[in-house]
Formats: sequence, structure tokens, C-alpha cells
Amino acid sequence: MNIQKIEDLLKKVKSGKTSINEAMAQLKSLPFEDLGYARIDHHRSLRKGFPEVIWGEGKTSGQILSIMKQMKKRGQNVLITRLEERKAKAVQKIFPKSQYYPRPKVLTYLTHPVKLDGKGTILVITAGTTDIPVAEEAVVTAQFMGNRVETLYDVGVAGIHRLLSERTRLETARVLIVVAGMEGALPSVVGGLVDRPVIAVPTSVGYGTSFGGITALLAMLNSCASGVAVVNIDNGFGAGYMASLMNRM
Amino acid sequence: MNIQKIEDLLKKVKSGKTSINEAMAQLKSLPFEDLGYARIDHHRSLRKGFPEVIWGEGKTSGQILSIMKQMKKRGQNVLITRLEERKAKAVQKIFPKSQYYPRPKVLTYLTHPVKLDGKGTILVITAGTTDIPVAEEAVVTAQFMGNRVETLYDVGVAGIHRLLSERTRLETARVLIVVAGMEGALPSVVGGLVDRPVIAVPTSVGYGTSFGGITALLAMLNSCASGVAVVNIDNGFGAGYMASLMNRM
Amino acid sequence: MNIQKIEDLLKKVKSGKTSINEAMAQLKSLPFEDLGYARIDHHRSLRKGFPEVIWGEGKTSGQILSIMKQMKKRGQNVLITRLEERKAKAVQKIFPKSQYYPRPKVLTYLTHPVKLDGKGTILVITAGTTDIPVAEEAVVTAQFMGNRVETLYDVGVAGIHRLLSERTRLETARVLIVVAGMEGALPSVVGGLVDRPVIAVPTSVGYGTSFGGITALLAMLNSCASGVAVVNIDNGFGAGYMASLMNRM
Amino acid sequence: MNIQKIEDLLKKVKSGKTSINEAMAQLKSLPFEDLGYARIDHHRSLRKGFPEVIWGEGKTSGQILSIMKQMKKRGQNVLITRLEERKAKAVQKIFPKSQYYPRPKVLTYLTHPVKLDGKGTILVITAGTTDIPVAEEAVVTAQFMGNRVETLYDVGVAGIHRLLSERTRLETARVLIVVAGMEGALPSVVGGLVDRPVIAVPTSVGYGTSFGGITALLAMLNSCASGVAVVNIDNGFGAGYMASLMNRM
Amino acid sequence: MNIQKIEDLLKKVKSGKTSINEAMAQLKSLPFEDLGYARIDHHRSLRKGFPEVIWGEGKTSGQILSIMKQMKKRGQNVLITRLEERKAKAVQKIFPKSQYYPRPKVLTYLTHPVKLDGKGTILVITAGTTDIPVAEEAVVTAQFMGNRVETLYDVGVAGIHRLLSERTRLETARVLIVVAGMEGALPSVVGGLVDRPVIAVPTSVGYGTSFGGITALLAMLNSCASGVAVVNIDNGFGAGYMASLMNRM
Amino acid sequence: MNIQKIEDLLKKVKSGKTSINEAMAQLKSLPFEDLGYARIDHHRSLRKGFPEVIWGEGKTSGQILSIMKQMKKRGQNVLITRLEERKAKAVQKIFPKSQYYPRPKVLTYLTHPVKLDGKGTILVITAGTTDIPVAEEAVVTAQFMGNRVETLYDVGVAGIHRLLSERTRLETARVLIVVAGMEGALPSVVGGLVDRPVIAVPTSVGYGTSFGGITALLAMLNSCASGVAVVNIDNGFGAGYMASLMNRM
Amino acid sequence: MNIQKIEDLLKKVKSGKTSINEAMAQLKSLPFEDLGYARIDHHRSLRKGFPEVIWGEGKTSGQILSIMKQMKKRGQNVLITRLEERKAKAVQKIFPKSQYYPRPKVLTYLTHPVKLDGKGTILVITAGTTDIPVAEEAVVTAQFMGNRVETLYDVGVAGIHRLLSERTRLETARVLIVVAGMEGALPSVVGGLVDRPVIAVPTSVGYGTSFGGITALLAMLNSCASGVAVVNIDNGFGAGYMASLMNRM
Amino acid sequence: MNIQKIEDLLKKVKSGKTSINEAMAQLKSLPFEDLGYARIDHHRSLRKGFPEVIWGEGKTSGQILSIMKQMKKRGQNVLITRLEERKAKAVQKIFPKSQYYPRPKVLTYLTHPVKLDGKGTILVITAGTTDIPVAEEAVVTAQFMGNRVETLYDVGVAGIHRLLSERTRLETARVLIVVAGMEGALPSVVGGLVDRPVIAVPTSVGYGTSFGGITALLAMLNSCASGVAVVNIDNGFGAGYMASLMNRM
Repeated sequence: MNIQKIEDLLKKVKSGKTSINEAMAQLKSLPFEDLGYARIDHHRSLRKGFPEVIWGEGKTSGQILSIMKQMKKRGQNVLITRLEERKAKAVQKIFPKSQYYPRPKVLTYLTHPVKLDGKGTILVITAGTTDIPVAEEAVVTAQFMGNRVETLYDVGVAGIHRLLSERTRLETARVLIVVAGMEGALPSVVGGLVDRPVIAVPTSVGYGTSFGGITALLAMLNSCASGVAVVNIDNGFGAGYMASLMNRM
Repeated sequence: MNIQKIEDLLKKVKSGKTSINEAMAQLKSLPFEDLGYARIDHHRSLRKGFPEVIWGEGKTSGQILSIMKQMKKRGQNVLITRLEERKAKAVQKIFPKSQYYPRPKVLTYLTHPVKLDGKGTILVITAGTTDIPVAEEAVVTAQFMGNRVETLYDVGVAGIHRLLSERTRLETARVLIVVAGMEGALPSVVGGLVDRPVIAVPTSVGYGTSFGGITALLAMLNSCASGVAVVNIDNGFGAGYMASLMNRM
Repeated sequence: MNIQKIEDLLKKVKSGKTSINEAMAQLKSLPFEDLGYARIDHHRSLRKGFPEVIWGEGKTSGQILSIMKQMKKRGQNVLITRLEERKAKAVQKIFPKSQYYPRPKVLTYLTHPVKLDGKGTILVITAGTTDIPVAEEAVVTAQFMGNRVETLYDVGVAGIHRLLSERTRLETARVLIVVAGMEGALPSVVGGLVDRPVIAVPTSVGYGTSFGGITALLAMLNSCASGVAVVNIDNGFGAGYMASLMNRM
Repeated sequence: MNIQKIEDLLKKVKSGKTSINEAMAQLKSLPFEDLGYARIDHHRSLRKGFPEVIWGEGKTSGQILSIMKQMKKRGQNVLITRLEERKAKAVQKIFPKSQYYPRPKVLTYLTHPVKLDGKGTILVITAGTTDIPVAEEAVVTAQFMGNRVETLYDVGVAGIHRLLSERTRLETARVLIVVAGMEGALPSVVGGLVDRPVIAVPTSVGYGTSFGGITALLAMLNSCASGVAVVNIDNGFGAGYMASLMNRM
Repeated sequence: MNIQKIEDLLKKVKSGKTSINEAMAQLKSLPFEDLGYARIDHHRSLRKGFPEVIWGEGKTSGQILSIMKQMKKRGQNVLITRLEERKAKAVQKIFPKSQYYPRPKVLTYLTHPVKLDGKGTILVITAGTTDIPVAEEAVVTAQFMGNRVETLYDVGVAGIHRLLSERTRLETARVLIVVAGMEGALPSVVGGLVDRPVIAVPTSVGYGTSFGGITALLAMLNSCASGVAVVNIDNGFGAGYMASLMNRM
Repeated sequence: MNIQKIEDLLKKVKSGKTSINEAMAQLKSLPFEDLGYARIDHHRSLRKGFPEVIWGEGKTSGQILSIMKQMKKRGQNVLITRLEERKAKAVQKIFPKSQYYPRPKVLTYLTHPVKLDGKGTILVITAGTTDIPVAEEAVVTAQFMGNRVETLYDVGVAGIHRLLSERTRLETARVLIVVAGMEGALPSVVGGLVDRPVIAVPTSVGYGTSFGGITALLAMLNSCASGVAVVNIDNGFGAGYMASLMNRM
Repeated sequence: MNIQKIEDLLKKVKSGKTSINEAMAQLKSLPFEDLGYARIDHHRSLRKGFPEVIWGEGKTSGQILSIMKQMKKRGQNVLITRLEERKAKAVQKIFPKSQYYPRPKVLTYLTHPVKLDGKGTILVITAGTTDIPVAEEAVVTAQFMGNRVETLYDVGVAGIHRLLSERTRLETARVLIVVAGMEGALPSVVGGLVDRPVIAVPTSVGYGTSFGGITALLAMLNSCASGVAVVNIDNGFGAGYMASLMNRM
Repeated sequence: MNIQKIEDLLKKVKSGKTSINEAMAQLKSLPFEDLGYARIDHHRSLRKGFPEVIWGEGKTSGQILSIMKQMKKRGQNVLITRLEERKAKAVQKIFPKSQYYPRPKVLTYLTHPVKLDGKGTILVITAGTTDIPVAEEAVVTAQFMGNRVETLYDVGVAGIHRLLSERTRLETARVLIVVAGMEGALPSVVGGLVDRPVIAVPTSVGYGTSFGGITALLAMLNSCASGVAVVNIDNGFGAGYMASLMNRM
């Protein structure tokens, strides 16, 4: 709540245009809405520049539909992550224009076209083919948030020439998202080749001591390349969101 | 090595201006220099946009001086991190104009003034006073790399009003670095208040189950706020570098 | 076994009202009952002020029914935690007045009305909607143990204004239970706002490095706010029980 | 900042008693004071009912003295935890009436006598003699905060009769703090004997797989006794503070 | 292969009773039999005093039957651990006299009656009812190996009087096996009450930070009582075997 | 891309045999092929001496068939690891001559006979029978890569004579692969008996604190015998591949 | 407190020989003595068959001397473990006949000669020379408790013939203690060779992934040999104590 | 002990050339020597092809000198690892021709010149300059064992061109040792470039979540490149030894 608004309010109180009770109410009324089980933050699109994203895991289809109806009423685009196929189908019956991406388990519903306000290209890179579902969560998120997105898949460090042959694309991207499981080495190599920020996404791809992505995460946190920051394991959404914030700058 | 240079080189080979042996040599000679124990990457400032930063830990004063002389010869500014006071003093005898920051253990040596090419302000925030040395590593790094930096210290979540009273400063920063130990909750709260990217830096501040920063790191990776990415524990330098890349965008 | 009883017993021995063998038996016979597989502690309601609570996990429906019959015979109210729906249905066939809560998987059976002897209100708060099942285990437990309970759900730290707008409710509660997964930051913020004890309950909500609730647990143990103590991951029952002890004080 | 104060302020604005600029200032001026490196929260004693406690670790003697002078000026009592003996001596030169407890490394400075407003007795129990320093941190904290404190040391579970012979004291305490390292079993036994809340404090006492207190912590979190909540390893202060909040109820 | 046998063999070589080739063969032929996938150690009953025990997990019914036939041929009793019910039924079709214990998933097949050569009683104790399957693995193993076994179930430390009321049985046992999950405190209390060796068995009973038995294991390794040694999590067999070795001494 | 080829290319540019554009293209065209989701590295057989091995996990049958067709076209032998039986059957419908090994879940398809170019014998040893599937992954891999392979199964350290009776076979192998779960001690004993390199493979065989193979892995990394190196848990393929590289030396 | 004593007491109460108050006192007075900081358990030698052992770590010389004087007064032998050399010297000034073992840091003081009541020989084995200090703690403890002890040092599994050449000694021991760091394999091999109980002691010997003894501990818990139980890392005392209990059986 | 020797012995027994007692002695006398605290394995050079290497850590100078004298007497070369400078100086007083390498803390003493019997070159590579001490332990070990060794230092993946410019050297090495801390990515890249076995050595270089080398270790175990096996953290000796075994093949 910004300073100007408070000043205006106080002036109205002084002048009698606004009663004390009304002023009290305005100072207290915060811009969110209570559905009983979930508080939708409608002003978030103002405050953070994006609509509220819904985390689908652990919510029933009924709860999700109820939230979507509220958001539709206000004309907001909707992005739901970690939504099982079964629930997505229930949603699509009511919202047939919504689009579901089964690999990353993401659903989008557009009440108005996405405005392309990202300034450059976001490049999403994976080390292997098994990392692609996580990468696609980042792709869909970044596109939903108004960015041009390109992809470069299966260029892991064990065949370093595959990556090096694409240096032009690396160098022209404005933000890079690098997705890797196993030993998680790819962000270090990419980070050493470009002068743009790299968002590293560890995946749970691997077996044995990959520990569900912990090894990749640790490797990324210890990157000997500068300009690399890390998000949670398998958090393609978080990487896409962070990249979108950067690409607006 | 970019495409244009190779094309030029091939043209010269074709025209006979460059012999095959010379072309071979140029294709092979990569722009780094071998000091025996350390390979300085002089073209890094071209490739990544910044000079090579030297990690002081585990290097002798002699090695550091030798690297600094090479870099001075080429007119590059120098940043040395994790440099013990004892070694810093040895460096300052030879390079009296170098500046040493004892709390973050960073030394800078400028051969030319830093050019202020960051587009906005980087705001560095700490949860407690004990987190300040790590924050200062970020501050010095970001300033060295050409950014305006502001600080907001000791605004941890147990007294949330301390943070909220500074919302104007939060909202006007272009990039935010949030430094916290213990439960590492501050980046989540800050991330929920701003629409700019937040770089979270866990610190080793705490005791018992803080596990030298692991608790703060895990909390930051699991932030319920979007737009937060994380660097290694106590890695103020990495945060400052990442923020600098962003602030140039 | 309290001092007074021993004294009485010794007096009876002295006066001959009680034989030595009888006294021996009384000194040895402790107030629990052996069903072969489980020892019910009938005097627990005296000693600890509450009836024995049954941990449903790993017990068969038959075993549970047998325990319930014993307790019914003695007129005690029964609370069974971690009871799968399948077993609950078997119990409800025999005890149709028992009530089952499917989300927290708790069953209660009342032989007499609960006496409201908690002195104030216990407020149960969650960070997200996915934390609600754990919160409800605390709610049902605290109500069963004679307390007024209020709830405040989905007020996580990424939208701090949602919490701050409810400060009056925070300040009027006598005991607070704060339930959170992911980064587990909410108890620190709540603990900084109130002057009442806060019981923090980490939940297994999250993915990747949330490690099934370990991250939230560690964050809560390292809370920079004073007046916060922690129970096991997903232990809503434990929090409700602890809060009940406090609310009687 | 409570509702009543805002209402009063608005009334004054309306009536012209307070100018808009003054009202702006009052709404913005939050009750903490910025010393550059640390923000002292003077109103904390109002808001939380206790003075700000200073965490001594990582602060210089100069910083601590500066904070103490501010607090003395406002007539607040001061408690400093984790203060090395060396710094304590520097403090005592300026504040000769301050009292230093070398085992728990705590310093107190009283500007006015402590008011005994705890309603009952807090009993602090340890498993071994090596746990006593942590216990004493709890003792000093609870006494500083206005409580009667009793102690019961070296009654670990390997000699269970030592504990059982003190059942009267266990039963008459209003709040119990149980401090244990190694296998951390004592809070479970105590929790089974009393009907009062038990605050369990794991200590780093032990070797090998005690892992600096993690084993004791885990045991306490998994207590089969109800009515036990846990604080961080070696966090005697936190236990004393929590117990004080409870004992005022 | 003992000294005496080698001496005898050499004497026979010297005297010509045994040819060099035969001696070579005898020196090389070790007393086990190769079934291709498993080497049965028939002389183990001589060397270790017990028949080979078969670990059922990961073996097919066919493999198990084949091993059993070999052992039956040699008149050895058979104990198979961790045998799924499905496989057990397949075994019982061929060996109808074999006995299967579904809770501990153990099968025994006797070719001759067990000889009771344990010198005293082995007492198997559990903290809760959910620990009983692991305890029964110990019971069956110890009985199979010729011991009298008694049990004392559900005497966990949260109701310490349940244990204390059975001190006579504790004191008359020759070896004690204590089985506990959760905080694993029971072996410490038992170890403090008796002057006999205690074998502690952690179980995977619990949730959250019980970490599948790790917490109980760590607590037992750090027991403040002397005379306690520990086996793997849920290793009832190992405890029963160890106790049998002791009870023969 | 080797030096000679670059020299040849430059000569052709100089002589005009190759245009600059063609030279550019050749310098850039790297020998891999892009199928959209996976980049097959056809020159890998030149560069590394073996065909690309396909990691079957997470790939659809369609993707695998598409890759196999490409490789068949080029006359390369194919090895697919971690292929579920269901997918293998789909492959065998199209490639009926391919061979599937259900225990190690490996599929091979030969377009030409394997050439036996390993110089000696690779001996694959297991501690128990449950380790055999992992061992067989190593066996199939090494055979596919042109090696004679022998096996020695179920010779774990608890019956050390089983191993010692096979010393001749140990001593005649050129490379040894030792596969073990549980306490992972076998590589240390084997490593002490031979003067050849030992590749240790930890398996996830065990329960409780075997932690899915971590215990065996750690034991192998800490082997007191020299000449032992370790691969990932259950990584029979990696061991077979490494042994093949050695056996060609 | 045994049944007989209670019966006697009741008889005396009945007959009037003992007043009720006296009986009360006797029932309550447990046989330990309170020194303020430590409760000495004088009847432990009756109850557990051995004198109280003092854990020297964290106790001052003054505290230790005070305890020793109490025990001397009662004619008990004293064993103090984990006693730093500095404190030992202070003790020896007052108790010149006490004996200090600097490698295991153990001090013994005999008020009467140790009675040799162990029935057989305890054999203490180490894998390497660096494990010897831990082994000696076991040796001194077992001798102090009345056992014949033999040792067999530096017979680790990498040179298995060193162990096998000593099979006679292995087979004649009544109890075996096996001490090993690094991969902790030795107890498995020993356990496979003997039919006596083996107590395994992991040591913190090693580096890197030996993790201060955790690797050895885990290996021992997962021993494929039966008849092995484990004590805490570096807990030579615990092993010696456990072995003494066994050797009396 | 090989078959031929046993056969010869038996023949001599048969013919009477060797008495039974002598044969017994020979069969039992194993070729090691007992110094009381350490058993030197003189025949190890026969059995494993190399002299016994001494682990210096935890041994006194006196013990080391005593072992060296024994080995000198038998004309064996000596390698001592992890020897502190202080002890090395004591050794050099008695063995002035011994050579000490302070960075890797290794001492060698040659009684005869090293015979160069490695077939090719071993290339030792490091990611950074701080990894060099570990690399040098590998270099000294491999040279001591008769190999030509080359080095390639400071070619970490953040500047991938530094590595690629040395491909000729990579390709001509017969065995490669790759030493790296931090994210441990280098072995994966090297493994993808060569067709020779790669031994990966994680180092404890790094901070925060490098966890003293665990991150690098995990990354190496999860290498997406085939032909990589791993040794313990900082185990340069082990890598050098393993490489020597390979280079003799």
C-alpha cells in the first residue's frame, strides 16, 4: 500500500470526504478474497506483475474449478502446475478452451491473449532427453508470461561438441535456463560460455547416488562458473518465472 | 572464437596472406596464458563481459602477486575473493593502491576507474547483523562490476515491521540480494513483496541444526514465493556477480 | 503411585486390615490392563489428565475394536489417529456414533460429552491449503480435549499482507499452532507478532529438497523468533495435545 | 500498531489536531531504532511482553556496548546470550553491575528489579552432568523473565530410579524443561509421568553417532509421550523463553 | 580346516595311504556345494554351530525349493527369512510340514526336533504393538536355535510403570532383546535395570523424522546405559541369532 | 576433430578445391544427428571406440525404435540398458533378432558379429545371489564390447573359504568386477589378493541401514586395499564398459 | 529394590518394628548419593554387577576427585574414561596409585585387586594400527572388569592371510571384539569364521567418505555374517563392558 | 600360496625330504612379519607386484623408522603417504636420501632405482589450482611405481576452451586421472573426449555445499560419460596406484 494512497486518504479524512470508519476499512481491506480453503490474491497481478499461479498438487478438481471461475470472472489468465491428468480432464470439461500439457503436467487457460513483453529470447537447454518434461514446464511458464522461448535439448557434457556447435544460439539468448539431472555439470559449462544469467534446474533424473536430484543440485550450487543461480529440484515453473522477471528488465 | 574471425582467417589463407601453419597456430592458440599453476583467461572480459576473478583461498601470496602483475600489464581491474588478511597485507606492499575489505575478505585493485553501467540499483538485504560480512562480499563485487548498490541490514522476519517500513526501497530496486542464515525465511517474504528477481544467499550463521547454512539453503530452495533463485552458502560474490549480469540487461 | 496411597496402605498393613500378601499385590498391580498385544493405561486419564489415545497405524480393525470396547466399558472417550478409511468403516459398523474425519484420518468416539475446560482459544494457522489435513488433526485433537479452536488457513509468507490483516485474531488467541511445509517460515513471522507460545508443525508438503518436511522442520527449529517449539513432521495430533496442556494452565 | 491508535490518529487528523504530515510521519515511524548495524526493537517489550534479547555471537564488544547504552537509557533490562568471556569482561568494565554466567555464557544487566510474574515453578531437568551448561542458560533466562526456577540434574534414564524418586517435584512443577544429549530419551519418560507441557532441549553432548546433538533431537521429535515439544540443539535460551511464555498463562 | 586334519592328511601322504593328487583334491575341496546361483555351506553347522540360514528376499520359489531339497537330503533343519507369503505357499506345497509365520515372514522346516541347548531364557521386549512383527522374527529364530523364549510386549517408556511392574521377569532372563521404533529409548532403560547383555533392535515404526528407523538406531547406539549392542533396523533375525550364541555360552 | 583433418581442409581452401563456405560448413558440421528429442552420436564409435549406448529409462518405445533404425542404417550394433520388459517386447516385434535379458533389463541388437578384441578375461564376482542381476548387466555389456567374461557368484566374505578356494581364477583374470550389496566388503578382500585392477559395483541389495546401496558404496570407496575404483550403485553397465576399456589396453 | 526386601519391610511394619514413617523413608530412599552436580549410584555394583564408571569428558578435575573420594570411601574400584592427560595428572597427584593409559585416555584406581571372574578369554582384534587406541580402551575396560584379554592387531581384510594364519586364536576365544575403521569389513570376515558372539566397534579412522566412522558403522550394521552386534563409533569402553557381561555368563 | 608350491611340498613330504612338522610350519608360516604394532607384508611385492605402502597418519616417527629399517634391510623401495612435515624431518635425519614432497605430504625412499615398466603415459588433470596437492600425490605415486606421468592443471569446465586446446595430449595418454573439487564436472567432459579409462578423484576443495568433497564425489559417480570410475575424496594415492595397475596391462 503506497505512500501516495495513504496521503490521499488522510486528506479526504481531514476534509470530511471520507468518514473515519470508511478510512479504517480502507486501511484494513486488503485486496485478496477468501474462498474458505484458499485466499486468491487478485491484486498480485498488480503487485508482482503476474497473475496468481495455482499449485495443483493436493487440491481437488472442485477446488481448482472454483478458483478458476473466480479468476475468469476478473478476466485473469490462469496457470496451474503439477496437475494430474485425471483432474485436468475434469477441468477441461468445464473449461474446454484450456490447454493441458501432459508431460510437464501444466494447464493454462487464457481469458485474453498473452502479450509478448519479454525483451529477448529465453533459451531452455537440457542435458538429456529424460530432462525434457521439466524443461517444458519452464517453456510453458515463460511463454504464458509473455516471452519468446527457444529450446536446445540433449546436449549433455559427455558429448561436449553437441553443445559447442550451437554457440551462436547460446550467445544470442537473453536469459538461459539449463536443466540437468545426474551429475548436473551442464550449467557450469554453459555459464562459462555466455555473459548472460543462467538459471540452473536440477532434475530427479538418474539412479543410485543421484539421490533424486540432490547430486545435480549440489553440483549446480558449487558451479565454478559465475553467473549461475539455482532453483529447487524439478522446479521448471520456478525457472520459467524467474527468467520472465529477468527478461522484462 | 566467433564465426566472423574464422571466415576472415580462411579468406586470408585462400589469398595467401596467411600461411597454413600460421592459420593452424591461430586456430589453436586460445586466448589464455599459462603461468604453470594457473591459466589466466584474458579474453574472459570479452567473452563474459568481466575480468577474471581470482579465488584467493589456497593460493600463496607469490602466486597471487604473479597473477596480478599479468593482469595489471593488460590494464585489467582485479577482484580477489576469500583472501586472508595476512596475504592481503603482502599484496598491498607491492600494490599499495589496492583496497582490502577485512570483513568480506575481498581485495580490489583498479587499473582504471569502474564504469557505472548497471542500469538500476541493486539492493542488498540481510536478516541479521551477523550476515553482514557475506552481504558485503556481494556489495563490493557489484560495485566493482559497475553498479549502484544500496543496503538494508537487520530486517529479519521475527520483526516483520522492520522490513515493511522500508517497502519503498524494496520496490525501487532493480535487483535484490537477500542474505540470511538460521531459518532463511527472508527471501520468501521479500519475494512476495516485489516484482523483481531476488537472489537468495544462505549464510552459515546459526548453531545446532542450522548445519552451517544448510537449513537456510533448503528453506530458500523451497521458497513459496516465485522469482527467487539461490547461490551457494556464504557465496556473496556469486550473488553480486549474478546481480551484475541482470542489472546490465 | 502417589505418596498418600502408599501411606494409607502401610497403615492398613500395620492395623492388620490388609494382609501382607494383599499389600504386595497392590504395590505391584499397576493400573493398566493387558490385552496380550496392547497394554491399555486406564489410569492415564488420572495421571496425565487425558484418556489414552490410540495410534491406529499398524493395528488391525479387530485389535482396535477390542481396545475400544474396553475403553467404552470404563466410560472413557476415545481418539484414534492415523486410521485408514477402510478400518474406520469397520469400526463405525460396531460403533455407529463414532465420527471419522477422512482428511486427517482421525476417529473419535464419545461416551460422554466433551467438557470445555480450555481457558482460551487455540488458533490453528496454515501456510497453504495443502497443509490443511495436518492442521485438522490438531483441530480435532484440541476440540476432543475440551478447547475452543479457531482456524486461519492459507496465509503463507509469500503474501504477508494476508497474515497481517488478521492480526487481531492472532493477538487474541491464547495458544497458536502454526502448520507449514516447504520453507516453513510462517512460525517465525507469527512468533514475532504475538506474545503467546507458538507450536510449530512442519508438514511433508513440497517436492524436491523439501525432503518430506525436513526443510520445514529445520527452518522451524532455527526460528529467529523466540517462543516457538516444534513437534514431529505432520504431527498435528502432537501439536493439538501440547496446546491443550497449555490451554489448561 | 493497533487499531485503537490508528483510530485516534485519524480523529486527530480530522479535527486538525494533527497535521497530515505529522500523521504520515507517525504512521511511518515504527518503534525501532537504527544503529546502522542493528535495529533495536524498543517496543518489543510491549508487543511481546519482554525486552529485546541480544545474540552475542558475531557482535563486537563495541556493538554490544552501544546497544546496551541505548537500552539502559530507556530503562530496559538486558539479556545477552552466547557471549564469550573475553567480551563479557569488556562489558563489565563499563557496566560493573552486570552479571556474567561463564558456563552458559550469558550476561544480564538489570536497570530495575525483575518482577516475579510467573504463576508457578519451572523445573529444569538434565540427563547428565555435561548437559548442565545448556540447562543453566534456560535457568538464567527464565529467572530473568520473572519465574521461580528449580533444577534436577543428572537423572538420566540408565538409572531410572534416580528420576522416579523425585516424582513429587516433577508433579508440582507448572512447566518442565528437559535437557539431554546422547540418546535423548529423558523427555519421553518425563512426558509420560506428568500432565504438564514438557519442553525438550537436545544437547550436543556425546560422541560418534550422537552427531553433535542430532540423535537427541530426533529422539525427542519422535517421543512416544504426548505433550513434548522441541527446540534447537543447545538452545537453553529458547526453552527458558518458551517456558516463561507458558508460565504467564 | 583345522590343524589336526592337515596333520592327518600329511601323515597319509607320507605313508602313501593317500596319493598326492588325492591330497591336493582334499586340500582344495572345501565343504560347500555349488548350485550355480547359490553356494550352500553344509559344514557351517559344524563351523558356526548352526545350519545355513537362507535369506528369502530376491530368490525365486524354485531356487528356494532346490536349496531346501539339498539341505533335507543332509538332514539339516532350515530357516528362511524375509519370505513373501506367496513364495511360502509354493514351498508348503512341496514341504507340507514346514511352518510359516506370516507376521515376521519366516518359514521353518524341521528334519529333526530342535534340541533345547540354550542355558537360560531369552526375553524379547517391545516398546509398542507395532514392533511385534520384528520381535517375532527374533522369537522364531531363537526358538529354532534351541532356546526358551519369553516375551514382554508394549512396555514403552512413555508409561514407565508398565515396564517396572515386570522387573522380576527382566531380572531372571539370561539375555534380553529389546525392540523399539520411534525414539528408541527402551533399551537404555532396560540396560540400566539388568546386569545381562541387551541386544537392541531398532524398528522402522514411526513417521516423519523417525526416518524409517534411523532415529531409533542412533538413540540405541548412543545409549547412556552400558551393556547394550545394536543390530540393523528391523533385524529381528540377527538379534535372535546373536542371543542364541550368547545363551549357549 | 583432429589436427590432420583441419590441415587438409586448409590446404584445400588455399588451393581453391574447397570454397570458403564449404570449409565453414565442414568446420561447423559435427558428426551427430538430431532426431528432435535425442542427438545420436554416430562418430562416437570412432572417437570412443564403441557405439552409442542408449539409456532406455524414460524413453518411449517409439523413440527407441526410431534411434535403432538410424543406427541399423549405419550398421552399428546397439545396446540398450534399463529397458522395461514391456518396451523390450515392442522392440522385438520390429527387431526380432534383438536379444533381451530380463534380469539385467538389457537389450542387444547385432548388425554384425561382435569382434573379440579384449586381450584377456574379465571376471565378474558377486557377494550374494541377489547381486546377480547387476552382475549380469556387466557381463552382457562386456561381452557386447568384445570380451571373454567369466563369473564367480555368491562368494561373500562371511564364508571366506568360498572365495579362497577360487584363487586360481582370481589370479588369471585380467580385469575383475566385484559386485556386492550390504556391507560391500568383498572388493577389499579381492583387491588384497590380486595384482589387477578391481572395479567395485555397490548394489542396492539389503535393508534398513543398507540405504539402498549407500553403505556398500561407502565401504568400497574406503577400501583398505589399493587398486579398487568404484562406479555408481547398481551400475553394472558402467563397470562392464570400464572393464572393456581396460581389457583393450 | 527387590520383592524380598519389600516383603521384609512390610512384615516389620506389621509387627511394629518399623514405624510407618521409617518405612516410607526406606521405600523412598534409593541407593544413590547426590553430590549436587552428579548422582553416584553406589548400589550399581550390586544391581549391575559392576561399579559406576565415570565419563571424564566435560567434568572438571575437582568434580572427578570429589567423586573418586566418595567411591574410595566405599571401597569401590574406579574406571574413568575419556579423561584428558591434563586432568589425569591432577588426579594422580591426589591418587598416586591410580594408573593412566594415555592412548585410550582411561584412568583406573583400584581399592582392591580385580577378581578374575570372566570364564574365558576375550580377544580384541584390529584392522589397522591406527585403530589400536580404541581397542585398548576395550582391553583396559575388560581387564578392569575381571577378564583375561588377548589382542590381535593389524589384520585387516586387504591382507586376509594375516587373519587366517591366526585361526586357532580366533577359535579359542570366548568373546571377540573387532575394531575397524575405513570400510569396516573385518567383523564380517571374523563373524564368518567363529561360532562365538562378535562385538563390532567402528572407529573414526579414515578420511574423506569414511565420515568419521559412519562408513565403518554402516558396514558393520549390514554385516552379511550372523552373530555380530555393534556399538557406537570409537566406543571401546562399551565393547569391553558388553564383552564382560557375556564372559560372565 | 599357489598350487605348484603345495604340490612340491607334498612331494617332499612323500619322499621324506621334508618332515611333517616342517611341512606343517611351511603351510602355516605366511610371509609377513610382526613388529608388534604393524604387520609388514614382505611378499606383497610378489603377490600384488608392488611394495607395501605405509599410511603415515596416526603412526609415530619411531614406528615409521622401524618399518623403514625392516624394508631397507630387504631392499624394498618405500612410499609413505599422509606424513606430516614434522615427522618427515625426523625420518630424513636417519634416511637423508629420502625425498619429501610437502604439498602432497608424501615421502619416498629408494633402495634401488625405479624401473620404468608402465607401457604408456599417465596424464593427471586438475580443474583448479587448489586441486594440485591431491594431483601431486597421484603423480608421485605413479612415478614411484614406474610410470611416465604428464600433468595438465587448471583446465576446469567453466573455461572449456582451456581443456579443448589440449585435446592432443588427452588423446595420447594411456590412462587419465582427473582431479576436481567443487561441482566435480571435469571427469564427465574428459570421459566424453577420450577412449581410455578415466580415474576420477574428488577433492575437498570448495566451501558451503561442497561438503568437503561430497558434491564432487557424487557428481563423478553420476557421470553421464562412460569409462569413469571413482576413488575416495582426496585419494590421490589410490588413483595413482590404480592407474599404475592399468598402465602395466
